[in-house]
Amino acid sequence: GHTIELKKKYLKTPKNCVILQVIFFLFFNMPSKEDTITAIITPNGTGAVSLIRVSGTDAIEKVAGIFRGKQPLMNTNSHTIHYGKIVNKNNEVIDDVLVSIFKEPNSYTGENTVEISFHGNPLLAKKISESIYELNIRQAEPGEFTKRAFLNGKIDLSQAEAVMDLITSRTDVSLKGARNQLDGLLSSKVNSLRQSLIDTSSLVELELDFAEEDLEFVPNKTLIEKISLIIYELTLLITSFRFGKLAKDGINVALAGLPNAGKSSLLNYLVKEYRAIVSSIPGTTRDIIREEVSIDGILYTFFDTAGIRETVDEIEIEGVKRSRDTIKNSDLVVFISDTERGIDKKLLNEIVQLAGTSKVIKLINKIDLDFKTNSEADIYISAKTGQGIQSLFDLLRAKALNEAIFTEKSAIVTSVRHLNCLKRALSYLEDSRNAAMMNLSGEFISADLRNAENALSEIVGEISEDDVLNNIFMNFCIGK
Amino acid sequence: GHTIELKKKYLKTPKNCVILQVIFFLFFNMPSKEDTITAIITPNGTGAVSLIRVSGTDAIEKVAGIFRGKQPLMNTNSHTIHYGKIVNKNNEVIDDVLVSIFKEPNSYTGENTVEISFHGNPLLAKKISESIYELNIRQAEPGEFTKRAFLNGKIDLSQAEAVMDLITSRTDVSLKGARNQLDGLLSSKVNSLRQSLIDTSSLVELELDFAEEDLEFVPNKTLIEKISLIIYELTLLITSFRFGKLAKDGINVALAGLPNAGKSSLLNYLVKEYRAIVSSIPGTTRDIIREEVSIDGILYTFFDTAGIRETVDEIEIEGVKRSRDTIKNSDLVVFISDTERGIDKKLLNEIVQLAGTSKVIKLINKIDLDFKTNSEADIYISAKTGQGIQSLFDLLRAKALNEAIFTEKSAIVTSVRHLNCLKRALSYLEDSRNAAMMNLSGEFISADLRNAENALSEIVGEISEDDVLNNIFMNFCIGK
Repeated sequence: GHTIELKKKYLKTPKNCVILQVIFFLFFNMPSKEDTITAIITPNGTGAVSLIRVSGTDAIEKVAGIFRGKQPLMNTNSHTIHYGKIVNKNNEVIDDVLVSIFKEPNSYTGENTVEISFHGNPLLAKKISESIYELNIRQAEPGEFTKRAFLNGKIDLSQAEAVMDLITSRTDVSLKGARNQLDGLLSSKVNSLRQSLIDTSSLVELELDFAEEDLEFVPNKTLIEKISLIIYELTLLITSFRFGKLAKDGINVALAGLPNAGKSSLLNYLVKEYRAIVSSIPGTTRDIIREEVSIDGILYTFFDTAGIRETVDEIEIEGVKRSRDTIKNSDLVVFISDTERGIDKKLLNEIVQLAGTSKVIKLINKIDLDFKTNSEADIYISAKTGQGIQSLFDLLRAKALNEAIFTEKSAIVTSVRHLNCLKRALSYLEDSRNAAMMNLSGEFISADLRNAENALSEIVGEISEDDVLNNIFMNFCIGK
Repeated sequence: GHTIELKKKYLKTPKNCVILQVIFFLFFNMPSKEDTITAIITPNGTGAVSLIRVSGTDAIEKVAGIFRGKQPLMNTNSHTIHYGKIVNKNNEVIDDVLVSIFKEPNSYTGENTVEISFHGNPLLAKKISESIYELNIRQAEPGEFTKRAFLNGKIDLSQAEAVMDLITSRTDVSLKGARNQLDGLLSSKVNSLRQSLIDTSSLVELELDFAEEDLEFVPNKTLIEKISLIIYELTLLITSFRFGKLAKDGINVALAGLPNAGKSSLLNYLVKEYRAIVSSIPGTTRDIIREEVSIDGILYTFFDTAGIRETVDEIEIEGVKRSRDTIKNSDLVVFISDTERGIDKKLLNEIVQLAGTSKVIKLINKIDLDFKTNSEADIYISAKTGQGIQSLFDLLRAKALNEAIFTEKSAIVTSVRHLNCLKRALSYLEDSRNAAMMNLSGEFISADLRNAENALSEIVGEISEDDVLNNIFMNFCIGK
């Protein structure tokens, strides 16, 4: 929209203008005068209470038309709750409700907002929605409330993206990641890098302005050092993606091995002890047996691969293909054998060829029966007694996350979109460093630094095309 | 509990005492000083927002301990909303929330109540619940909030029962029934009958007090008329149960008939056009094919019965048994044949024997192929074009509901518990009328009238044993 174009223009202007800045601030922080939208914001289904939200400049005014209470909604204060009844166009009572009033800019969206709490019956939800649609209020798109919160300057884009992560997180670690991102940890890291870039490029540009006088404001060596420091910090953020991605989406582990080595009994033990809260997000394929377990705040998805050996049986061929694909695409592979048979070299070799050595963990099961240590294996467990299971998870976690360098308070990248912005910024920075090393004109260096800054600003959403925004919010659930 | 015992005693005292009445009023209308309870009150699952309720004398004080906001919750007014964060015992932020404050008696339960609105993630729900449990607040039993609303005099018992009906209603008609009951239509009808009974028995008792003077305050004929009028109104209420039950639970219709007469195609047509909102209440058996459709505000459940003829095949025998049971237990049976074969007399006879003549509708399908009217049938349709379907539903509704005598504003009985109270009251009233007719002593008449009044007062819950209450609220969902 408008505000984005203006901001983009502003950011591209190297010399800031205080007046423009003030005008811009006022304009960008005004609530968007868009149409009024509504959606059920509680989970679908039957319960004691459900909530429907209405947001937009005339939200309170419009809902007042179908509300019958002690006092008209128009005369109420922000952050107050009012008991009454919602009626349909024939003035028939649909339900008794509590109506919460939020006045702009003090609402989730930054707009005037009404939240109606009613009896949690899907039929009532339908009737109240219909009554609201008749006020010329339309159903909100997925993520549209959060999009408006972003457009109205309540949160930046990376925070907006964290909202959906927060809702869908299924383990402590991913929850914490989303929480940190929503609290602005990533934003402030990115913004501090942007400030360094602006400061550095300003110095270069200042030098250009005085080019005729041949003044050197910043020695070339210092410039290269400054750029290198930013490159180092960017690289660290990029490295955090693997950790962030696994922390957010969990770790996929394929279970492979000889028949009867204990794949199923290990899976059963894990499910019994650590089964994860079941996802309500649709679309997970169930072609191969998979179980989700949550331990120490990390979500692990275990895939039970049948066999990977060649076969002529038509149906088995398909199974073998799927097992191979699973092993290839998993983050880690646990190769299971038992104390009796030890590690099957030929089968191990096939798996290592599919997955790569570093991804394979060699495990010996059934140590409750007969425990002989065997230097071939990485880990010894009993799927019957649970012995060794904690060590297995410690090893899985260590192998997958490589988390030593990231603390609770580190800015972590979890989104592919952010990763791509960072990689683009990095590439511009490397160009600018090369230009500096080759003593090229400051104009080249400055342009690359500005481009890097622009790439970073896309993370927090200060430069965003409409289709980027649409792509982001399309993946939200309705009502958020 | 206490209050109930006291009220019972009070109600059994024929001569009212104003002071006792006042003391009782104060006592019964004081919020119960029970422990503080909590539950998630929105449907289970993932969504933008979920709500958790905490209710009890010290609810606000306790939740204030885990809330971090601009101002302490203790200093807030009723019906206000406060933005802040909920923390765990280690003071780590779990989520940012909106907290709504309701001060006794102006809350759903009549107690101090806090409602916390948080991001709709089941994992966050678990964490916030745990944080609340640590405040020595326990998980609420099913229906416990509504039970407290009843015990604190916010609503009477029949209204409390209507809350659960309102949540689970799946059609307009049952919704309207629950709405009317919650608005007190049944209560006020029952209370007006109770008043008539008290007035009548008072007259009889007054006469007893002046027995030595042999004064007749009410002629025997008038007394009998008064009792008869109440009996008439009670009978009307009892009659409404069939209507109320079907309106609430829907109408069960068995589809029977020759193979290929079009049972399945009729079912498919109905499902395509009128499928009901799917129930999320568990426990419905799926042994026989069943489909729920909603038309003109009524829920119909159609059961596809296979065959009912004798067979020797073991598996078929079980199927035949189930079909026979379904036909026997349905509210109505549609016997389907087609234009070609007409009504099969032998099969029809078997069905009539199982279900009774008045429950069977004879239907001819496939009138799109070849329409010859046939005086044997009640109704002619085409499951292919939909022709005649509306007439089928008109007939089903007319047969099942016999609704002519009940208007939108009639008090309708939908609960078996209420029905049983009404039947007991009726039986006492018939005894009292007999006593009056036989000119027995006023003591007998008065006792029966008082007993009838007691039976009615159980409907609105002014006399309730603990186990009656427990039975009622046991069937609620958690969080209501």
